[in-house]
Amino acid sequence: MAVRYLTARLAQQIDEELMNTAGAFSIDQLMELAGLACAQALATVYNKEKYPRVLVCCGPGNQGGDGLVAARHLGMFGYKPTVYLPKPGSKEIYKRLEAQCRNMVIPILTPSHPTDLEPLQQLLPQSDVILDAIFGFSFQPPVRPPFDAALPLLTQSKLPIISVDIPSGWDVEKGNDLGVGLEPDVLVSLTAPKLGVRGFRGRHFLGGRFVPKKMEEKFELNIPPYPGFSQIVELPSENESQKL
Amino acid sequence: MAVRYLTARLAQQIDEELMNTAGAFSIDQLMELAGLACAQALATVYNKEKYPRVLVCCGPGNQGGDGLVAARHLGMFGYKPTVYLPKPGSKEIYKRLEAQCRNMVIPILTPSHPTDLEPLQQLLPQSDVILDAIFGFSFQPPVRPPFDAALPLLTQSKLPIISVDIPSGWDVEKGNDLGVGLEPDVLVSLTAPKLGVRGFRGRHFLGGRFVPKKMEEKFELNIPPYPGFSQIVELPSENESQKL
Repeated sequence: MAVRYLTARLAQQIDEELMNTAGAFSIDQLMELAGLACAQALATVYNKEKYPRVLVCCGPGNQGGDGLVAARHLGMFGYKPTVYLPKPGSKEIYKRLEAQCRNMVIPILTPSHPTDLEPLQQLLPQSDVILDAIFGFSFQPPVRPPFDAALPLLTQSKLPIISVDIPSGWDVEKGNDLGVGLEPDVLVSLTAPKLGVRGFRGRHFLGGRFVPKKMEEKFELNIPPYPGFSQIVELPSENESQKL
Repeated sequence: MAVRYLTARLAQQIDEELMNTAGAFSIDQLMELAGLACAQALATVYNKEKYPRVLVCCGPGNQGGDGLVAARHLGMFGYKPTVYLPKPGSKEIYKRLEAQCRNMVIPILTPSHPTDLEPLQQLLPQSDVILDAIFGFSFQPPVRPPFDAALPLLTQSKLPIISVDIPSGWDVEKGNDLGVGLEPDVLVSLTAPKLGVRGFRGRHFLGGRFVPKKMEEKFELNIPPYPGFSQIVELPSENESQKL
């Protein structure tokens, strides 16, 4: 049984159930485990000796929160993360996640005006890999400023990109049909992959090892078994899974 | 530089700083990572094929919270945990952690009266390993009911025991000087080991990979480097560290 690819609506519903009585999780817990999974996937593919400088690009929503958590764990793993956060989220949790990064002496780049791209332009040549935590499964086109201008800069940098859940700029269900999205080398899907990444050809990991069995069965997620006590599992590539 | 062993007072102070502005962590985050580390240490030593049935013994405080988180992760790893929780904590977070276990269909054993030991007596012969999350670094002797009677039962079971932070019944600074404490095979110290476990001879892991460098330096913790992206690091045994 192949893993299920989720519509945006179903992803939203599962997220809600994880936090209501069916899961009873707090957002702090879910983000901590999701961000940890992202950091571990990055560390699996890009070792810190060759790729120490990680540019963690964060959006203003929950996806950005996952990015802030991942940045902190990457710092603990010995990487040199820098956070690009042009539009800091206003919820209390984002402020705490930011404070946690600052306490770890992780630089957070927030231009005085969100659309000022110069700081990002300066940072890109000093980075080895990009962690894309800008837009998540609640993204609705079009890409708004400053990200409409930032995404092309990330692409033009030719740096390896690892995207969280859905590559930024992609439609959650239709993929990069407008052609304005990033083309990541690696993808970390959280809980279950989304419809839009169905044809993704790079290395694809699944994270979010917290879905109760009853929920997994209810939504027929067919999550593959995670190995040992890992927080991530690599999915077979699209070519391999088509053979199955 | 050897790792620092903490007094009870210092452990308390570090815990507070992790949650105030110096760390900015929520209790949800810290417990999630601490409990995950405990589950990973158990899974490192006791594989789920030979030791599937884990009896997770939880006290009414934060230590019990770590135990509930560990039980949930052990369930995700494929173990068959059962929680023994004679005195459920009253704080809201414990109720949520309990609900998370129930959602994972992990049995929680809370006798109708806390001092009724029969359920525990029935459970012990059906268990392969004990995770001791009863008392933590805020423990003050004497051991009170029902744990004064439960600890000897755990010892008499001859099951392997893995203790969190400080073996239950030990004085946090003086160790098992009263002789009423458990004698675990494995220990998982959180953040930094406590003075009382200085002479511990079993396998000793450190978990809690969330201490900001500035705090580590301020308190001269000398935390050994964690390997890769692991949430635990094994400390050299007492014999080895005396040679250093």
